[in-house]
Amino acid sequence: MVYNFSAGPAVLPKPVLERVQKELLNFNDTGMSILEISHRSPEFDAIMASAEQNLRTLMAIPDDYSVLFTQGGGSLAFSSVPMNFAHHKIALLDSGQWAKKAGKAAQKMGITVDTLSSTASQQYHTLPNLPVKIPADDYDYLHVTTNNTIEGLAFHQSDIDQLPKEWHLVADMSSNILAEPYDVSRYDVIFAGAQKNIAPAGLTIGIVKTALLDRVPDNVPEMMDWQLQISKNSMYNTPPVFDIYVANLVFEHLIAQGGVTAIYKHNQEQAARLYDYLDASTCFTAPVTKKNRSFTNIVFTTGDETKDQKIAVEATHAGLYYLGGHRSVGGLRASLYNAQTDDAITALIKFLQRYEGK
Amino acid sequence: MVYNFSAGPAVLPKPVLERVQKELLNFNDTGMSILEISHRSPEFDAIMASAEQNLRTLMAIPDDYSVLFTQGGGSLAFSSVPMNFAHHKIALLDSGQWAKKAGKAAQKMGITVDTLSSTASQQYHTLPNLPVKIPADDYDYLHVTTNNTIEGLAFHQSDIDQLPKEWHLVADMSSNILAEPYDVSRYDVIFAGAQKNIAPAGLTIGIVKTALLDRVPDNVPEMMDWQLQISKNSMYNTPPVFDIYVANLVFEHLIAQGGVTAIYKHNQEQAARLYDYLDASTCFTAPVTKKNRSFTNIVFTTGDETKDQKIAVEATHAGLYYLGGHRSVGGLRASLYNAQTDDAITALIKFLQRYEGK
Repeated sequence: MVYNFSAGPAVLPKPVLERVQKELLNFNDTGMSILEISHRSPEFDAIMASAEQNLRTLMAIPDDYSVLFTQGGGSLAFSSVPMNFAHHKIALLDSGQWAKKAGKAAQKMGITVDTLSSTASQQYHTLPNLPVKIPADDYDYLHVTTNNTIEGLAFHQSDIDQLPKEWHLVADMSSNILAEPYDVSRYDVIFAGAQKNIAPAGLTIGIVKTALLDRVPDNVPEMMDWQLQISKNSMYNTPPVFDIYVANLVFEHLIAQGGVTAIYKHNQEQAARLYDYLDASTCFTAPVTKKNRSFTNIVFTTGDETKDQKIAVEATHAGLYYLGGHRSVGGLRASLYNAQTDDAITALIKFLQRYEGK
Repeated sequence: MVYNFSAGPAVLPKPVLERVQKELLNFNDTGMSILEISHRSPEFDAIMASAEQNLRTLMAIPDDYSVLFTQGGGSLAFSSVPMNFAHHKIALLDSGQWAKKAGKAAQKMGITVDTLSSTASQQYHTLPNLPVKIPADDYDYLHVTTNNTIEGLAFHQSDIDQLPKEWHLVADMSSNILAEPYDVSRYDVIFAGAQKNIAPAGLTIGIVKTALLDRVPDNVPEMMDWQLQISKNSMYNTPPVFDIYVANLVFEHLIAQGGVTAIYKHNQEQAARLYDYLDASTCFTAPVTKKNRSFTNIVFTTGDETKDQKIAVEATHAGLYYLGGHRSVGGLRASLYNAQTDDAITALIKFLQRYEGK
């Protein structure tokens, strides 16, 4: 038995994988593989329509928002979102490396990026606060990374609710979309790479207040132009058919489980089991401030990088995969995305207890 | 029995699909699905290295060229290639709608595009010629579309060989890469969406003379920056793991079949069977000039759009899928990519003969 704690691409629901396998040579009795069907076919039209509708249901996306299925990951969105929706200056809350990277990518596109607050000097163990008295009007929007995969801290919706309403928000939800509830109506733009909670790598989700599409400038590359892409129903060119098909199966699976509210409860319980163990442990610490902790990426350490690395290797031998922290920060990290199993948490805690006992 | 003549996504080799299905829940005895493994894992490193090496072998890519696996399809390359490699002005041979689209996308990026020759007024039934006495030095490069999927005509390598050597060439090989031999050393840049001959939709191949990467300007979005992407071994961000895995299996399958020389012979034979039938038919015509005909996209018509549409529908009922021409031109089209079977050609010819007999 193998348990996969990868930060992404990551574990997918077993029933979805089994279904993909079962119908891989014959999708929906067409006699063709889903890998072979045309994106201009009625079969794929039905998948695309279903995927959008299911995502709208799961996230309660308001009618005045548009949904985009595209490619390039969060990293392409780091360029395309400012190219589409920033006109002179954006603000950033620096809550981790992915926030910083988003800012850098926007700057490369000629946009001024003001980092209003950063917790880099505290190793991102706590969320940055928005300083008071900064006029929101000075900025096209404020960029937030809802879940910081590398550092294991998150803006939960309750944190977002404390930001003054006059701020327009753009959220990178790559690593906790559909893992906890967010109020879509509070954001101008949401984007997320799919390879954590939704589908194999290669698909990116975009959600945008439709009225903003009128403001997209002319000089955006076609494949990055959200106005153009959405006007073509995400089929300006050939979309990643297989990824959208898997995404739709994952959405259906999630709806059958009770939707985001139910999975969030489950994710909180799983994370609590691991954090409770770590907090009580004499060997490991989880350094992130309790109320800012991520439910999807649990970061911890012995405080000794050599030991941490040894533990990650030993874990692999015990069937617990990808527990090493991000290469830029070291330490240990267990990713508990939606498809993570309770058995995996049990196995991980047992393994850490065994290590602690030695 | 169903035969798939889609222009892409398209038929993939059966043994590859069977292998994907077999190991979908357990890749390489890892106990994890290929859809779940980290792109930073030794398992994926091995796939990526193998895919690049196999592509180099199949296309005889010289050592001073770099290979890129990226996302966004040919359409993203329509913007990224001029952003990376054009500095003021490019030239275009307008051999079809995809050539035209490439030119339009470059213009949107502020590049001047001179269409040196076009056969639009002949419905693209023949290739455009490069006019003599145009100084190549005036242009950063000449864009050619080696295979025109919609119109069914191709620049074969012998046509390319007739272009004066001083022209720098950029080739969009989306619909016949690996289907016929091209001399890579004759091109500065080659790109191709993978969803015809290589893999499911979502992967794009880039091949570039390495020396050109030094000239990439600073203001290119990170995910479109070929210098950056190639310096990170196509893993600046999470690559489309599954597509690269399938691509590698297709490459291995093709090498085992004898490589591009062998598949080209096979493709020519298949295409000849269909063209010979069409040319002898009293009911159908294949309008493209013989020497310019594509081996991957065979375009034909009864001359009556209503009849053509009816035939495409009847064909579907007989298990012959996606024979309708591109929605912009109508008519009929059979795509015979590398994985197309001889049985499919036999079935198609029989179906057309039956129609002709009525």
